[in-house]
Parts: sequence; C-alpha cells; structure tokens
Amino acid sequence: MPPVPVPSDVEEFLRRANPAIVATLRRDGSPHTVPTWYDWEDGRVLLNMDESRVRLQHIRRDPHVSLTVLDGHQWYRHVSLLGRIVSIEDDDDFEDIDRLSRRYTGNPFERRGRRVSAWMQPERWHGWSGGGPWPSSFS
Amino acid sequence: MPPVPVPSDVEEFLRRANPAIVATLRRDGSPHTVPTWYDWEDGRVLLNMDESRVRLQHIRRDPHVSLTVLDGHQWYRHVSLLGRIVSIEDDDDFEDIDRLSRRYTGNPFERRGRRVSAWMQPERWHGWSGGGPWPSSFS
Repeated sequence: MPPVPVPSDVEEFLRRANPAIVATLRRDGSPHTVPTWYDWEDGRVLLNMDESRVRLQHIRRDPHVSLTVLDGHQWYRHVSLLGRIVSIEDDDDFEDIDRLSRRYTGNPFERRGRRVSAWMQPERWHGWSGGGPWPSSFS
Repeated sequence: MPPVPVPSDVEEFLRRANPAIVATLRRDGSPHTVPTWYDWEDGRVLLNMDESRVRLQHIRRDPHVSLTVLDGHQWYRHVSLLGRIVSIEDDDDFEDIDRLSRRYTGNPFERRGRRVSAWMQPERWHGWSGGGPWPSSFS
C-alpha cells in the first residue's frame, strides 16, 4: 500500500460527500466497523460522533483506524485510508457536526447532545475502480 | 451490542446483495478495511478473495473480522457483524466466487486466478436505520 499523500484524483474523490465506513479497535483488539460521515481537509479526515458511541472509547484507547470511502453512485470504486487519530476534542459549539451535516444533507445537524470531533492522519491508502487497482483504471 | 442470532428482519436484510466492507487486522494489530462481496447462509457469512489479497494474510494470522453491510439504496440503513473467520479453504473449482458473482452481477466470475473462501461466524451485531438504532426504527 502506498504512503500518503494521495494523488490529486484520489483527493478529488475524497472531497466528495461519499459514504464511508470507519474501523476502530475494541478493547480485545478485534475490529469494529460502522458507517460515518467525514470531511477531507489538508490531507486529514474529520470525523464526529455522539459522546456515547463506543468507537469514541475505542479511539481514546487505541488511535489506529481505517476508513473506506465508497463512490456514492457505484460502490466498486473506492478508496481506503489507514492511519491514526491525532486529535480528539469536544465539539461544544456543534461547528464540526454542522459542517458534516451540511456537507451530506445541506442542512445543519438536527439532533443535539454532546458531540466529539476526531481528526485522522492517514498514513497509507489503497484504491480500486471496478476492473482493477488504483490508479491504473481510475478515471 | 447484542449477540447473534440476528432478528428475522435483519436476516432478510443480510440476504440481499448489499454492498459490504470487511475489516481485518494487520500484523501490527491496526485495522484494514476494503469493500467485499458476501453471502449469508445459516447465520454465517461467505467471503471470497484472490489468494494475493493482503486480507487473506490477515485472517490467516488473526481471525477477528468485522463486516458492515449497507443498504444499497440508502446507506443510512446498515448492519454490522462482529466475529471471526472459522474456515479458510481454497475455492479450486470457483464454486464460491461464481456463487458470489452471480448474486451480485447475475453472471459467473469473469477473471480467474486462485481463489480462497473464508466463512465468518458472527458473534455480535449492531444496526442503524436513519433516525436511530436498530430495531426500533427499522422497517
């Protein structure tokens, strides 16, 4: 798997509001996966979650995560980022969750509660586009 | 997260040819994610991969996996299964990969090579449907 930075066409793909799935590590080291909103900024990934989510406990314990991003129109095109969480901060003013909600729905986030933001620093990546590995067949 | 077996409506969801993402563990214990075809049979999950895939090395080393299955029409409905690989066998006659290919594309698998099948035994699961956790809002 090549290291970051990702090529510019991969970056363009990641800038879109695509479906994504994040994997975190449970206490026993086994993986846990769940879909998530994300945003891409300056080579890092913004995640945000309710403070009650188990994945928040996971990343506080072990920062290693993997994020797979699917093309929203055809899931045979996808990019995965492997890396670690480098920052966890309360999203007290809902700035980050509103940012993500606007990105995916066009509107600020409806429900409230306590939100937490986490920034992921990707280290490696891999991609696929239908017939074969990235980037040969990606267009 | 509740243990298996999953409720009947979750089972019905899993029987559909939905997009899925599997998480495996790398040598250093960090997670790796990638989209995958799967099939559901008698409470277990069939996966199949080319023998060159790194996730095959991962599951030979550590059987813990997590699989997130998305509703193909709207990804805010999803189910995740946490468990372990209980069987890894060569798919010499391409029976399993053809089965998966027919399920997702209607046709047998085009490319050949050496294929390997892995069966996952789920142990726990969680689900979500738009407004909240499974199964309260799932229909």
